[in-house]
Amino acid sequence: MIIVLRPGTSEQGIQQVADAVKKFNYEPRLIRGVERTVIACIGDERSHHTIESLSVFPQVESVTPIQKKYKVVSREYQAHDSVLDVAGRKIGGGTFHVVAGPCSVESASQTIETAKAVKSYGATLFRGGAFKPRTSPYDFQGLGREGLDLLRQARAATGLPIVTEVLSPQDVEMVAACADVLQIGARNAQNVPLLAAAADSGKTILLKRGVSGLVDEWLLAAEYICLHGNTKVILCERGIRTFEHACRNTLDLSAVAVAKQETHLPVFVDPSHAAGRADMVIPLARAAVAVGADGLLVEVHPDPATALSDGGQQLTPKQFGQLMAEIRPLVEVMGKKFGSD
Amino acid sequence: MIIVLRPGTSEQGIQQVADAVKKFNYEPRLIRGVERTVIACIGDERSHHTIESLSVFPQVESVTPIQKKYKVVSREYQAHDSVLDVAGRKIGGGTFHVVAGPCSVESASQTIETAKAVKSYGATLFRGGAFKPRTSPYDFQGLGREGLDLLRQARAATGLPIVTEVLSPQDVEMVAACADVLQIGARNAQNVPLLAAAADSGKTILLKRGVSGLVDEWLLAAEYICLHGNTKVILCERGIRTFEHACRNTLDLSAVAVAKQETHLPVFVDPSHAAGRADMVIPLARAAVAVGADGLLVEVHPDPATALSDGGQQLTPKQFGQLMAEIRPLVEVMGKKFGSD
Amino acid sequence: MIIVLRPGTSEQGIQQVADAVKKFNYEPRLIRGVERTVIACIGDERSHHTIESLSVFPQVESVTPIQKKYKVVSREYQAHDSVLDVAGRKIGGGTFHVVAGPCSVESASQTIETAKAVKSYGATLFRGGAFKPRTSPYDFQGLGREGLDLLRQARAATGLPIVTEVLSPQDVEMVAACADVLQIGARNAQNVPLLAAAADSGKTILLKRGVSGLVDEWLLAAEYICLHGNTKVILCERGIRTFEHACRNTLDLSAVAVAKQETHLPVFVDPSHAAGRADMVIPLARAAVAVGADGLLVEVHPDPATALSDGGQQLTPKQFGQLMAEIRPLVEVMGKKFGSD
Amino acid sequence: MIIVLRPGTSEQGIQQVADAVKKFNYEPRLIRGVERTVIACIGDERSHHTIESLSVFPQVESVTPIQKKYKVVSREYQAHDSVLDVAGRKIGGGTFHVVAGPCSVESASQTIETAKAVKSYGATLFRGGAFKPRTSPYDFQGLGREGLDLLRQARAATGLPIVTEVLSPQDVEMVAACADVLQIGARNAQNVPLLAAAADSGKTILLKRGVSGLVDEWLLAAEYICLHGNTKVILCERGIRTFEHACRNTLDLSAVAVAKQETHLPVFVDPSHAAGRADMVIPLARAAVAVGADGLLVEVHPDPATALSDGGQQLTPKQFGQLMAEIRPLVEVMGKKFGSD
Repeated sequence: MIIVLRPGTSEQGIQQVADAVKKFNYEPRLIRGVERTVIACIGDERSHHTIESLSVFPQVESVTPIQKKYKVVSREYQAHDSVLDVAGRKIGGGTFHVVAGPCSVESASQTIETAKAVKSYGATLFRGGAFKPRTSPYDFQGLGREGLDLLRQARAATGLPIVTEVLSPQDVEMVAACADVLQIGARNAQNVPLLAAAADSGKTILLKRGVSGLVDEWLLAAEYICLHGNTKVILCERGIRTFEHACRNTLDLSAVAVAKQETHLPVFVDPSHAAGRADMVIPLARAAVAVGADGLLVEVHPDPATALSDGGQQLTPKQFGQLMAEIRPLVEVMGKKFGSD
Repeated sequence: MIIVLRPGTSEQGIQQVADAVKKFNYEPRLIRGVERTVIACIGDERSHHTIESLSVFPQVESVTPIQKKYKVVSREYQAHDSVLDVAGRKIGGGTFHVVAGPCSVESASQTIETAKAVKSYGATLFRGGAFKPRTSPYDFQGLGREGLDLLRQARAATGLPIVTEVLSPQDVEMVAACADVLQIGARNAQNVPLLAAAADSGKTILLKRGVSGLVDEWLLAAEYICLHGNTKVILCERGIRTFEHACRNTLDLSAVAVAKQETHLPVFVDPSHAAGRADMVIPLARAAVAVGADGLLVEVHPDPATALSDGGQQLTPKQFGQLMAEIRPLVEVMGKKFGSD
Repeated sequence: MIIVLRPGTSEQGIQQVADAVKKFNYEPRLIRGVERTVIACIGDERSHHTIESLSVFPQVESVTPIQKKYKVVSREYQAHDSVLDVAGRKIGGGTFHVVAGPCSVESASQTIETAKAVKSYGATLFRGGAFKPRTSPYDFQGLGREGLDLLRQARAATGLPIVTEVLSPQDVEMVAACADVLQIGARNAQNVPLLAAAADSGKTILLKRGVSGLVDEWLLAAEYICLHGNTKVILCERGIRTFEHACRNTLDLSAVAVAKQETHLPVFVDPSHAAGRADMVIPLARAAVAVGADGLLVEVHPDPATALSDGGQQLTPKQFGQLMAEIRPLVEVMGKKFGSD
Repeated sequence: MIIVLRPGTSEQGIQQVADAVKKFNYEPRLIRGVERTVIACIGDERSHHTIESLSVFPQVESVTPIQKKYKVVSREYQAHDSVLDVAGRKIGGGTFHVVAGPCSVESASQTIETAKAVKSYGATLFRGGAFKPRTSPYDFQGLGREGLDLLRQARAATGLPIVTEVLSPQDVEMVAACADVLQIGARNAQNVPLLAAAADSGKTILLKRGVSGLVDEWLLAAEYICLHGNTKVILCERGIRTFEHACRNTLDLSAVAVAKQETHLPVFVDPSHAAGRADMVIPLARAAVAVGADGLLVEVHPDPATALSDGGQQLTPKQFGQLMAEIRPLVEVMGKKFGSD
């Protein structure tokens, strides 16, 4: 921690802060500058108590942490890429995977037809929502348990592992019984009890970044999961909320590049939720590959105009085929191997 | 819904969209403009399926809802202010309440000392966190069940009703057994299973706006609670996340004014979380009163520099007394009555 | 400046950075922490070259300035409030002024009628745009030179000093010949050549915060003006651009409180541009008074529905009368004196 | 325009709004819905006066434009890509150009050395700032006229056309005498007098998006230039200001994809200003190519650690060579031709 004191702080004022620093078991080192005195506080900021509270002293101008708070997820902790195993698929470490499927599972035919279609175009995992977090209580909330059955059928029909969202700690057991990967959605990116329950299931977790989540917060959410003994975490960028409304969210590919540098975990991108409109999904998917993502999450529906949720952003199977055709040479340029190969 | 078609759309293209509109049980009305044709879709947007998915037709330029999605919380549904009863305190409808207390309850002495102090200065409810949602797993997570006991002691010592946060559906019963008001924090503003479980407890709910929550989303979260048969909801603005970092969040008082106009529910303001720094709490509290808020949520700690969470934003009891002295004449100008009077 | 080095940096790597620091005439002081070495750089950050460029060394994790860059506008430079004199009106230092008038001056009758009306309700300065910065080239761009004549007539008719915007360095002389206060709009908040030209006119400058301007950037823009020998600057908060669209902008009253603490300059608030809708102007005006602003800028038009620009946010004279009636007792509670009294 | 009236509006209230619509020369068409009446207003929204001011009627709930305001820059106006000619280089329409050079020109050797280096790696235009818009008045403001001379020398030495920024209408003539492309910076994205003066020079304009500029505003700024008879505009995305601070700005590649769809103008990307840190420039450059950009603007300095401005984001010539090597195969996959080929 670096504490900057206001100009003109008395010796007594300096001492008061230094004493407070010691109480928190940091060692204070005084640096007397031209105008301001700075106190560098020596100690591990993760195991020690935070001392940002010292900003309440009137003579303190600012308190700045110098250490990142995440540890287990960091490259300093593990330099090489984590490679996760999901039903035999290797994720991370130079592979590239496309998870595809409808926003919501709506019926057996819609689910299985989509699963077969996306598999035929090269998707290596299947996604579909059974429990849907919706902004309005008047919107379709998902088929719930019945939806999980449809997902099971899709896996039986195609062999694709299943990625599906869980909304509540109580549902983790039920959803984990069906899913190969538990998805934690953007609205739950800091829902600690849910992160803990999902971690405890032992399943791989696909962790979306919060709608307004800092990269640091996203990594700390992953750290919560890891501290529950489950390091099988896939990070997923899905667009952040900004002033710009040309697309529903602003896809933040710099966050992907930063995350790839900071952490050893695989990082995926969801261009569908970022764009909120089908016509922007393919260019954003291409950009995600080129920035260095390890995979994509893409929404596909046999008839988007009639979809029960987020129809405007879902691709038809044919459009998905186009997406796969466009990203394939880019994946190759990036030196990555399609997971299905 | 208003569907705008692209210039030059053929008659067939127009008909295709109109037919799709009919399938969703809206009645399409065509308006042929100078450049574009517009289809107005007649039907109740709340009870009908959304047709924003029609944006996938290439001839559709935009689909715009014209109806607000919330209903029960709206002034159209109930024109007069809701007045909630919390342990005999009337909230809303011309009263003004100050909820005060520490960010976290840390010990019996800290809790009870603070409760007595804030009561002596005029607070009418006591707040304190037992379950703390923290960004980092390495930070203090609250005393949990033991913290609830301390809150009970604070109520016994002062008679102040208790406001405390609940993080998980499983904890609702336990927390509700202690609390007079269940707080749903900003991180859980769209955690539907938690909203549902809290609503079902029958307790008054203090619902914070999400860190990047639209006013519409905030009101729809309240609508979720109301649809569970519990209309005892206090809305609470606590600052939104923007590019500006002079304060931790940007207190959005226009959202308070909009919410007061759109809904009959009481609206409180939390200047402590908005500011993230003690020296800005009092001016923001004054502004909140003047914009028309029905109450405040203020963090107070006997020794903020040693607080186990968010020390930098907590007021000392003496500073809290200053806050109360400054807002009292403003509450009077606004024609409101202090809840304790 | 504080330079944080990555864990495991070699002695040679540390020395390389220390040497670079010396080249920039700062004195490096090494603090060896538990994991990281920190170099505190002693020297005046305003007169020295910035060394944020040292972040390009791979062993550097971060470079953080510790000094604020503004000087002349700061409370450290001048502790007491600046009091500006505009045609005999004292601005700042415990007075409160309301600047009112139409968004654009459109005709002699509209201008003079409005000026008389706002004066009758207590406005102490008159505002009106002759040169309008518009997002679209197809929108009304102001009457220009002819508009300045109308403003002169308004002053002649009412005695109210004139506040009007200038858009280009070439126009400064012409506009300054008419205006008592030159307004620099939000789009020009970092237009340095315009700031310089306006400063050189010797007129009082009303400096709006940029649409996405940090408080620091706003104060540095004021510093540019002051360094041109003109310290007659009124700061004006007018809402920032965020994700929330219930109002056009998000009025950031915490920025007003921060600016009042950081600088001795008077700080005004423009609730009309912040809200973008007339029905929110009065509550935001009240909040601005209570947070501690020194004045307001309010748009008033005799018939807003027919206004040539920004009609939706302009008050009728009668609504303006209501605004004045509502803020008067709040100004009194704040211990301020209406400028006209 | 679509005007939505509040539920329960009387016939008289409806008529009042319809009459107002007619006064603005739109033709009102009434659509009576289940709860609300909607008035569709027929007329060209670009040539007619805006009627958003009608929102001041209490019975009006909202007024929504349905037409985009830009025209000349739109694909509806010109379906095929514009191809601009800059000193013989074809820009747009399937070519790809890299503009490279230092943030500021600082000396003859620094300028010419960099120009030669970037040319050797494949850059096809040279950039360098002579007039620098800086947030702080205490920072280096550029060499001005002397800097222009250095740019001339760089062109003489390498044959590369020159891209350089102009800050003030008065400087346009002087800068245009040296530059092949005039750059309008993000801070001046809505500086209409500067846009006009730059357009009038007849030079190609590289128009950066504002720090918080909507895509619509960016295109309208280009429309201002086009309406001055100069359609040689290159759009340049350079990151927007959001809550995320891992990079200095958030590069918004969805805006590039939207702009490519909406307009026929070439769209470039500046990953250097977006990132604000050298280590993120290459991945963002790759993503920009893959999303469909027509060119890049990249900052390169022989010794970034000693740069007089923005050192932290500048690449060394060697790093720039790495960037070129990484994007080349991606440009090929995108089916574009390097401008120099």
